[in-house]
Amino acid sequence: MSVRVAILGQGLVATHFEVGLERFKAGEIGAHGVPLADSILPYKPEDIDVVVAYDVDEKKIGRNAYEVARDLLDDGREIPRTLKDIDVRMGIHMETLKGTPFKAKGLDDEMNVEEAVDTLIDEWRSRRVDVVVNVITTEHGEPLGTAEAFREAVAGGGANLSASHIYAYALAEYSTRHGSAAFVNAIPTPLANDDGVLELYGQNRAVVFGDDGATGATPLTADLLEHMAERNRKVGFIVQFNIGGNTDFLALTLPEKNAMKELTKSSIVDDILGYDAPHYIKPTGYLKPLGDKKFVAMHMDYLSFNGARDELYVFARINDSPALAGLLVDLVRLAKVAVIKGQWGTIYPVNAFYMKRPGPPGYRSIAKNVGYELLKRWVSGDIVDLTEFHGTPFVESSS
Amino acid sequence: MSVRVAILGQGLVATHFEVGLERFKAGEIGAHGVPLADSILPYKPEDIDVVVAYDVDEKKIGRNAYEVARDLLDDGREIPRTLKDIDVRMGIHMETLKGTPFKAKGLDDEMNVEEAVDTLIDEWRSRRVDVVVNVITTEHGEPLGTAEAFREAVAGGGANLSASHIYAYALAEYSTRHGSAAFVNAIPTPLANDDGVLELYGQNRAVVFGDDGATGATPLTADLLEHMAERNRKVGFIVQFNIGGNTDFLALTLPEKNAMKELTKSSIVDDILGYDAPHYIKPTGYLKPLGDKKFVAMHMDYLSFNGARDELYVFARINDSPALAGLLVDLVRLAKVAVIKGQWGTIYPVNAFYMKRPGPPGYRSIAKNVGYELLKRWVSGDIVDLTEFHGTPFVESSS
Amino acid sequence: MSVRVAILGQGLVATHFEVGLERFKAGEIGAHGVPLADSILPYKPEDIDVVVAYDVDEKKIGRNAYEVARDLLDDGREIPRTLKDIDVRMGIHMETLKGTPFKAKGLDDEMNVEEAVDTLIDEWRSRRVDVVVNVITTEHGEPLGTAEAFREAVAGGGANLSASHIYAYALAEYSTRHGSAAFVNAIPTPLANDDGVLELYGQNRAVVFGDDGATGATPLTADLLEHMAERNRKVGFIVQFNIGGNTDFLALTLPEKNAMKELTKSSIVDDILGYDAPHYIKPTGYLKPLGDKKFVAMHMDYLSFNGARDELYVFARINDSPALAGLLVDLVRLAKVAVIKGQWGTIYPVNAFYMKRPGPPGYRSIAKNVGYELLKRWVSGDIVDLTEFHGTPFVESSS
Amino acid sequence: MSVRVAILGQGLVATHFEVGLERFKAGEIGAHGVPLADSILPYKPEDIDVVVAYDVDEKKIGRNAYEVARDLLDDGREIPRTLKDIDVRMGIHMETLKGTPFKAKGLDDEMNVEEAVDTLIDEWRSRRVDVVVNVITTEHGEPLGTAEAFREAVAGGGANLSASHIYAYALAEYSTRHGSAAFVNAIPTPLANDDGVLELYGQNRAVVFGDDGATGATPLTADLLEHMAERNRKVGFIVQFNIGGNTDFLALTLPEKNAMKELTKSSIVDDILGYDAPHYIKPTGYLKPLGDKKFVAMHMDYLSFNGARDELYVFARINDSPALAGLLVDLVRLAKVAVIKGQWGTIYPVNAFYMKRPGPPGYRSIAKNVGYELLKRWVSGDIVDLTEFHGTPFVESSS
Repeated sequence: MSVRVAILGQGLVATHFEVGLERFKAGEIGAHGVPLADSILPYKPEDIDVVVAYDVDEKKIGRNAYEVARDLLDDGREIPRTLKDIDVRMGIHMETLKGTPFKAKGLDDEMNVEEAVDTLIDEWRSRRVDVVVNVITTEHGEPLGTAEAFREAVAGGGANLSASHIYAYALAEYSTRHGSAAFVNAIPTPLANDDGVLELYGQNRAVVFGDDGATGATPLTADLLEHMAERNRKVGFIVQFNIGGNTDFLALTLPEKNAMKELTKSSIVDDILGYDAPHYIKPTGYLKPLGDKKFVAMHMDYLSFNGARDELYVFARINDSPALAGLLVDLVRLAKVAVIKGQWGTIYPVNAFYMKRPGPPGYRSIAKNVGYELLKRWVSGDIVDLTEFHGTPFVESSS
Repeated sequence: MSVRVAILGQGLVATHFEVGLERFKAGEIGAHGVPLADSILPYKPEDIDVVVAYDVDEKKIGRNAYEVARDLLDDGREIPRTLKDIDVRMGIHMETLKGTPFKAKGLDDEMNVEEAVDTLIDEWRSRRVDVVVNVITTEHGEPLGTAEAFREAVAGGGANLSASHIYAYALAEYSTRHGSAAFVNAIPTPLANDDGVLELYGQNRAVVFGDDGATGATPLTADLLEHMAERNRKVGFIVQFNIGGNTDFLALTLPEKNAMKELTKSSIVDDILGYDAPHYIKPTGYLKPLGDKKFVAMHMDYLSFNGARDELYVFARINDSPALAGLLVDLVRLAKVAVIKGQWGTIYPVNAFYMKRPGPPGYRSIAKNVGYELLKRWVSGDIVDLTEFHGTPFVESSS
Repeated sequence: MSVRVAILGQGLVATHFEVGLERFKAGEIGAHGVPLADSILPYKPEDIDVVVAYDVDEKKIGRNAYEVARDLLDDGREIPRTLKDIDVRMGIHMETLKGTPFKAKGLDDEMNVEEAVDTLIDEWRSRRVDVVVNVITTEHGEPLGTAEAFREAVAGGGANLSASHIYAYALAEYSTRHGSAAFVNAIPTPLANDDGVLELYGQNRAVVFGDDGATGATPLTADLLEHMAERNRKVGFIVQFNIGGNTDFLALTLPEKNAMKELTKSSIVDDILGYDAPHYIKPTGYLKPLGDKKFVAMHMDYLSFNGARDELYVFARINDSPALAGLLVDLVRLAKVAVIKGQWGTIYPVNAFYMKRPGPPGYRSIAKNVGYELLKRWVSGDIVDLTEFHGTPFVESSS
Repeated sequence: MSVRVAILGQGLVATHFEVGLERFKAGEIGAHGVPLADSILPYKPEDIDVVVAYDVDEKKIGRNAYEVARDLLDDGREIPRTLKDIDVRMGIHMETLKGTPFKAKGLDDEMNVEEAVDTLIDEWRSRRVDVVVNVITTEHGEPLGTAEAFREAVAGGGANLSASHIYAYALAEYSTRHGSAAFVNAIPTPLANDDGVLELYGQNRAVVFGDDGATGATPLTADLLEHMAERNRKVGFIVQFNIGGNTDFLALTLPEKNAMKELTKSSIVDDILGYDAPHYIKPTGYLKPLGDKKFVAMHMDYLSFNGARDELYVFARINDSPALAGLLVDLVRLAKVAVIKGQWGTIYPVNAFYMKRPGPPGYRSIAKNVGYELLKRWVSGDIVDLTEFHGTPFVESSS
């Protein structure tokens, strides 16, 4: 009984995910950073098998995860040799890396999009993939609105679609042709927040989690805001800077990708406080020597009782990729659980804890500690009333 | 329909409580810092009337709250003149201020303890007091264990009892003689954590909330620890310094009072994380110019997935007294609700959110965000299963 | 014996300068924030008289400094009524405020540039102005290179000149026509760093100090870098964010003005360390509720002995305008001293301490503590060898 | 031409000093953290030879520096094998480690103090020691006042003398018997601040530098205070906490050792600002997992121009021992230079930069950047007027 995973984007997150899992299986590390490590989930972390990876960086295509890991990781410990079994295959490009210094090519540069989709499906079938995880570099993407529009866009050559949308489409098709599967979208491209994707997944009996894995400063900010809200303090302003030196921060120096990110980060203020306190919350810059360990600085000012004004200052140095990798250890297991339960479309109680911008559309970001309670209740099979998270009752898009 | 309050210790907390309430009634400020301001509680903040105050500082006894406020507050705004109606009467001393620079005297310096208790009871009755709030300066106090021991200690002259215990005893007697009432213990002296107090309150049909109002750095630390626990991160160490310039910090420079405080602050680590991460969490010092706005510095180091090590640094400048005063606006209303409901003894779902060391004895400190959920469920009348907060089921000491 | 000052830009800096001086004269405040307050300078702070002010904001033109101060300042203290004597006259526009929300007009909108210059000169002469201080909003400006080019640009209508250049040209002309005077350039526009300005000032027997008053995070960063350099530590990287809510930060959200600022802030790294440690040092954003009290966050990582790696984190909340106003109290007095000494052109030992980008061109930024020593030696009349601050000996452009 | 060093206290500082020097000689690391690394000093770092070490920890005596280093260091790099040549011999005990968990013995436990002194002198002569460096654990010590009192105290059995005093006495005797040498006192015990030590060293033609190597938070605090002083800002208060996990912090949990340290740290406020701004500057605690990388938190509040109030917050993680080891690379070379120049007693221009409490007695602590200028001038042979650092002219205690 295993969870068979295909991973999209063989970068730092994928590498930490693969390496961390193997080290955990070998007993070298604990399951730190894996929220439901010891939980009642029917799958254990050691049940996860990464069976294939995809990338569009020409330097990675055709190699294996072990070779890539040796280039990317430098933590003074040995790379598990079992990673040699994970091939890095050519993925979908759609010019995702345009503007970054990487030389890239994709299946879609060699064939039309529908053929590319078929190629992916074949590869997934032969490897009996259960869950596809999307951790490609942040890219621009627009929601499609309906399943019909989504299908037509692919049939029409996919001109304005993001790579993530193509992958997500392939997963929906794969579910129809070969049995239900799940897609975990850990980047900002709106998938679980796209009614078109959700409708298609409902029709095709597939599961999607998303969008944008909740690591870094955002969950911490969310919980601090909840801390204020629970005491009815009036937040005067919030500033949150963050800077890093990995590929993702490099991509964010491109304005349109940054705008994508800012959206998911900034909505939490109004969602949690109930009013839009003045805020500056943005990925701020790129500085190479910071590497994957980003630097966050935060400042908050609030009104307490009897007109008293307090101040809060926070610094953090956070290893971005391992944090997300730890969440993925849960997400792929939860994804398979959702498939088994037959809960097609997306699952807000999962997204609310793990994602920066939890789908479906129209649902609020909530403090992560509140999301954690929701999650635990969903896992234990409780019926959860979601009305307080939205004006209209939550309707799961199910078959 | 009002909540009539007697306040013990006419210091900064009492003053902010009284001034803030009057400003709120006059529409000058919002109810910021009052967690349940807008809730479904049957009493509103404007229903609270402070009807009498007590102190042992010779400079305060015989004056009124308006005169004291003019000396203590300097926030550039006018002091509400309605505070002239609150007399500051002579309270219980028991040498509470020994070692501090204040000249003090109490009822117990002029008569024996039982007579002092009778005096208090008479004063409370004539003012129809519902709730007594304890915000005297931090003092040393030991739990008594049984109602019998408590009664004997008072009868024997109260030699080793703290002033808080005498006051709490008076409230229990007052409940028996004149009808049930409640005691809100916002300082560290163990009352809600003393089986002797709880037993007596059960017998006398009285309510006590405590111990030690959860303001300052502790609730923030608790929620940050919960943030780590929910992600299964392994905390390597925690350092938390804090320093202030008010009377309470001055008192904490006396070793035995400091020890009292350290206990309530430090237990949260093991309680929330489930293991005793190495920590240094102490009230650190006194520096006059900081005044009532304390300074907190915190540092935490933790292990994330795949062996990644992250760091977190927090600074805060927090107005101590207004924060506690804001909580009291809830606590006195909740106390009257508990009396009406007839839930004698103490109420863990209230204490867990509002107190640093929530009684009854044997119950865990929990993250404040978790406590907040408990509180909301208690307020809305839910039956709350408390077994997960303790090895044995919670038995309310009720009549 | 007084120092008669015309001030350009009746904003927050000018207001704090004027208000602070009057409060100091009235004995209400000490000379805190004035580096040479108690020094051997022949002029005391109380010798300074602001005799006229200029602005292009239509809401300010024609009013007096008292009226403007009442709108801008809100520190709970009274505005000195002596400020009613300072008229706010129409200044030079040159579209300085383009892109900001202010409605503006200038002399140059009503007449040609040479006539505008003559108007200024006449106004200055009638008020016997000794020193002109430039604190207009940050604007874009390019160096001119030669006195000839400068003269031709003005004669040709001043099309590409900044408002600061027009003002500086007027001061040079004023010096020739009515006797030597000085120009203090406290904003980033390159004047003391423009060989054209320096040549003209040398010819016309005038003094200029500049550029960009050293307040905020930059001097602190400079001294911290010097702290590292003096211990031969190898700085791995430096991040410095800053955000504010005053007009200057609003202007910096316009890319070309930001670029102007970044240049002066960022050169200090190489100048002080001797190597260009990777850095991100930028005015980062605008957030209105921060007002004039900006927020700075900094992070530095460095290598100590035997490969040890240390980290430094700094937060600051700094009142921007009063800090600069305090420096101006020195700069106008030093400017008059330089005029009396006949040291035409610019004075590096003054600029090195007070300016972010000390002129003349080709000279290094140095740590402020090193600049302080230079300054003290210049004030006391020492001959200062400046060769170590530049490859070629410093030649003052004197008559 | 070399500098031959005996090191007292084979702990982390000694180990980093020895290991760092060997790694530098081997070209593995740069001279980062060595202030005068590339200076005109006649000795280079590679000229330093550690020829013997001393300790009283039974686990170290009889071993060599290589063996000790393997136990103490864990930085993932190999220990240089050349350290096997440095024997760790039994040193002076005087109950220095009383109260700490180490089992200790010293020469003075096996013979009387004068014999112990003779033993040291013989060992130093046979190894042709030039400079003795004192880096034993912080201990209590009182100044002696006169050379006579010092001699008598040793002759009388040394009952109340610190181990440092015995070592310092041995160095003075060694200088008389076998030629001038120098003692670098990098711990708080007052030696360069003891007129008795200075008189003896003057008579015996020896050099002492001290006291308490300026690493950690103190130099940074000093430079930040100077930053305020140079701008005439009025500091409202300063808080500085620091906590670490090495032997030195463990020792500081003993009250009398802590008092020793607090004295040297706290005097800088008045010395640099010229007034005693309210401050809390103390070694605050011990927490094992912090190890040798201490944690510092600082907060400062100051008044700028026109009544504006600013705030500064600083966090640092500092590797304590390597920082001091880096300074020692200079100090032993400067010590030999002082011996060659024949400047007996102590040298304020050296101490002012490198020491927390620079001797001789009566001299002020100054900002380190000011001390750096003094140092450079002393190194280059300038005659330095020291009157501004003291009420009376500096008289070097020379033969």
